[in-house]
Amino acid sequence: MSSPTRLTLTEHSPTYWRVTFDNPPVNLVDGTMTRELDEVFTRAEEAAVKVILFDSADPEFYIAHYDLSAKDELEHVLAHPEEVHPYTALLTRLTKLPLATISSIRGIARGAGSEFLLATDMRFASREKAVIGQFEIGMSAIAGGGPATRLPGLVGRGRTFEMLFGGLDLDGVRAEQYGYVNRSLPDAELDGFVDELASRIASFDLQTIKDIKHFVNIATLRPDAEFKDQMDAFWASVSRPAQQHVARHLFEAGLQQRSEVERDLPHWVTRFQYRPGSDEG
Amino acid sequence: MSSPTRLTLTEHSPTYWRVTFDNPPVNLVDGTMTRELDEVFTRAEEAAVKVILFDSADPEFYIAHYDLSAKDELEHVLAHPEEVHPYTALLTRLTKLPLATISSIRGIARGAGSEFLLATDMRFASREKAVIGQFEIGMSAIAGGGPATRLPGLVGRGRTFEMLFGGLDLDGVRAEQYGYVNRSLPDAELDGFVDELASRIASFDLQTIKDIKHFVNIATLRPDAEFKDQMDAFWASVSRPAQQHVARHLFEAGLQQRSEVERDLPHWVTRFQYRPGSDEG
Amino acid sequence: MSSPTRLTLTEHSPTYWRVTFDNPPVNLVDGTMTRELDEVFTRAEEAAVKVILFDSADPEFYIAHYDLSAKDELEHVLAHPEEVHPYTALLTRLTKLPLATISSIRGIARGAGSEFLLATDMRFASREKAVIGQFEIGMSAIAGGGPATRLPGLVGRGRTFEMLFGGLDLDGVRAEQYGYVNRSLPDAELDGFVDELASRIASFDLQTIKDIKHFVNIATLRPDAEFKDQMDAFWASVSRPAQQHVARHLFEAGLQQRSEVERDLPHWVTRFQYRPGSDEG
Repeated sequence: MSSPTRLTLTEHSPTYWRVTFDNPPVNLVDGTMTRELDEVFTRAEEAAVKVILFDSADPEFYIAHYDLSAKDELEHVLAHPEEVHPYTALLTRLTKLPLATISSIRGIARGAGSEFLLATDMRFASREKAVIGQFEIGMSAIAGGGPATRLPGLVGRGRTFEMLFGGLDLDGVRAEQYGYVNRSLPDAELDGFVDELASRIASFDLQTIKDIKHFVNIATLRPDAEFKDQMDAFWASVSRPAQQHVARHLFEAGLQQRSEVERDLPHWVTRFQYRPGSDEG
Repeated sequence: MSSPTRLTLTEHSPTYWRVTFDNPPVNLVDGTMTRELDEVFTRAEEAAVKVILFDSADPEFYIAHYDLSAKDELEHVLAHPEEVHPYTALLTRLTKLPLATISSIRGIARGAGSEFLLATDMRFASREKAVIGQFEIGMSAIAGGGPATRLPGLVGRGRTFEMLFGGLDLDGVRAEQYGYVNRSLPDAELDGFVDELASRIASFDLQTIKDIKHFVNIATLRPDAEFKDQMDAFWASVSRPAQQHVARHLFEAGLQQRSEVERDLPHWVTRFQYRPGSDEG
Repeated sequence: MSSPTRLTLTEHSPTYWRVTFDNPPVNLVDGTMTRELDEVFTRAEEAAVKVILFDSADPEFYIAHYDLSAKDELEHVLAHPEEVHPYTALLTRLTKLPLATISSIRGIARGAGSEFLLATDMRFASREKAVIGQFEIGMSAIAGGGPATRLPGLVGRGRTFEMLFGGLDLDGVRAEQYGYVNRSLPDAELDGFVDELASRIASFDLQTIKDIKHFVNIATLRPDAEFKDQMDAFWASVSRPAQQHVARHLFEAGLQQRSEVERDLPHWVTRFQYRPGSDEG
C-alpha cells in the first residue's frame, strides 16, 4: 500500500487498528480518500484484524462532506450509468467487513461524513462536540450515500424524514436520544471509552466476530441495489440547475474552506435557494 | 373541491399548506372526513405542494377516534369484502404522497387518530397536552388502520405490543422516549417549532423532497396487503358480540360526546368487558 | 403435565398465568427447563390463557445462561445437524404463542436468559436490579438463541453490535434507553406494575389478542431458518478449542455456581482468552 495522504493508520496491535481522517482544511471525502480507505480494508482483512476505530485528526471537523469541486467526476458518472460509484461500493463493503468497526465522533460529520458513520457498526459521540447531519436537501440534492436506507433501522422512519427533509444538525445528546449513535459521552471520556471497547473486542475470538457480523447483517442489511439507485439520484441532482445555483453561491461564500459556511452549513444553504425564472438563474 | 366540513385548509404559501381538523364535538374521523382529506391530497399533488402540516382546532381533542355510530358502514363493508376500506386507502396514500407531512399533536389522538399520525412522515407533540393511544383492544377490536404494521418501525416490537395489548395512553414525554413522536416540546413552543420546520422544508427543492420520500419509503413501507387484512379484521371484530357489548355501554355512558368517557377512554373500557354467558349478553 | 422442577406455575386466574424460574443455584436453562416451558405453553394454549408473566424466584439471578456442562448435548447436536435445537424451537414458539407474554426482570439475565427475554412480547426491568447481557463472545462463541436476529428490531443495528461484540451488561436504565426493555421501573414498583398490566390484558378479548399478535408478528418476525443457523453456529463454536479453553478455566473459577464469576461474568471472561500456540492450549 502506498502511503495514505488523506488519513493516518495506527496499528495499536496486530488486531486493533485505528484510522484517523486527516485531510485539511475540513476533512473532505474524495476519490483519493475512498481509494485509501478501500486499501486499508483490504489490508485489514488480509491481516485478520478484529477491530478498526475511526476518528479524526481535526477536533472541529470529523468529515465535512464529499468534495463537490470535482467537475470531471460528474462527467464520468453521467457517462457510465452502469457503474457503482466508488463511495457507494466502499460503504457497502464497510458494512460487510469481517471485523468490528467503531466510529468515535468529535466535530462536524455531515453529508458523506454522516454516511460513513452510518456504515460503521457502532457510533460513539462527544456529547459537547459532535455535530451530525445530512444537509444535502439544502443544496437541492438527495443524500447519495444511503442514509435513506440506513437511517430507518437506527432512528425509525419519522426521525429519518426529519433528518433528510429538514437538513439540520443533531448534537451529541440528540443523536443518542434518536439512536443515531450508540451513546454520547462527555468529551473528556470519549477517547478512553472507545479505546477500551476496541481493546476488549480485539481480545476476543475472530471467528466469533465474523459469525456475529454475518448474522446481524442478514437481519439488518438492505439490498445493495438500493444504494446504487440513491447515488445515481444524487448525481442526477448535481446535474440540475437548482443544485448548481446553491453550490456556486456557497463556494463563493466559503464552502470547503475553514469558514463559517462550513461551520453552520444548514443555516447558510437557506440563503441561496433557487427560484426558477429569477434573474440570476 | 367543495368546501370541507370536517377540517379547514390554510395555504400559508403556495408550497406550504396546513390542514386543521375541526369536527366537533371531539374530532371524529368518518367517511366524510376521509373524502375531504383525499381531496386535499389530490389538490396538493396537483399544486406541487412541498409540505402539509396537520393540527387540530380543538386543543383537547386532536382526533378522538373513528365514528363508531355508522351502522350502514358495517353492512357495506361486510357485503364487499374485496374492497379496500377508504380509510386504509387514505392512510396508504398519505405515506406515499410526493411531499413532506408533519403532525403537530395537542390533545387526544386515539384509535384512528393515532393511525393517522403514524401515516404522516414526522410527528411532534406537546409535552404537556398530547395524549396518544390505541384503545381498541378495550372495545374487543383490533385497531384497523395499521398500527400493528406501522408502529414496530418507530417504537420496536416490544413497545408495539405494549400499546396494542395494553390499550393505554402515552403522554408526550413517553411518546418521545418510545420514538412514536420525533420530539415532544413544551406546549408553548410546539406551534413555532413545527411552523419553522415546515417553512424550511417548503423553501427546498421539490424534486429532492420527492426523491427522499421515494427512497425512505422503499426502506420502510410494508406491503399494502397487510393494511387491508388488518382493516378486515377490525370489521370482523365489530360484527362480534364482545365488541357490540362494550360499544353499547360506552355509547350510553357518553362515547363520542365531549365527556369523561372520551377524556379517559382507556379507563372506561374496563368497566364494560364482555363475559360470554352472562345475563345481559 | 408432570410437576415442573425448574419453575413454578401460578394460575392467578384462568386467563392470567405466571411462570417463576426457580432452578438453583443460578437459574440455568437446560433441556429439562426447555421441556417444562414447552409443556406450559401447550397447556396455556389449550386453556385459552390470555397472558403469561415470567419472573424469577431468585432476586439475584433471573436466568444466568444455558447449562454448559452437558457434554452429551454437544455430541447429540453434532450428530444430528438436521434437527432444530429444542431451545431454538421453544423461543420461536414463544414469539408465536396466541396470547400475550410479559417478562418482569430482576437480577442477572445473560446469554440464554437474555434470549428468552427477547422472545417474549414485552419486557419490564427493575431499574436498580436488572442486569442484561450477551456475554457469549467472551467465551469465543456466538450467542445461539437468536439475539443477532431479534435485537435489531428493538435496539437498532448499532446497539446490537455493541451488545454482541462487547459482551458487556446493560443495567435497567441503559436497557430502557436502548429500547431493549419497554420500561425500567423503580424496583419497589416493578411487581405492581407488571401485575396490573397483565391483569388488564387478561380482562380483554382473546380473539383480539390473537389478532394483534398475528399482525405484529407479520411485521416483525424474521424467518425461522435464521434461528436454526445461529444455533448451529453456536454449537460449532462450542466444538472449537478457543471456547473449550475459556469454558474450562471459568468452570474452575466458579462458573454455574453462586460465585463472583457468575455475578461479574463479562469481567471474568477476559482473564482466560485463548491464545493459539500458547503452552496450555
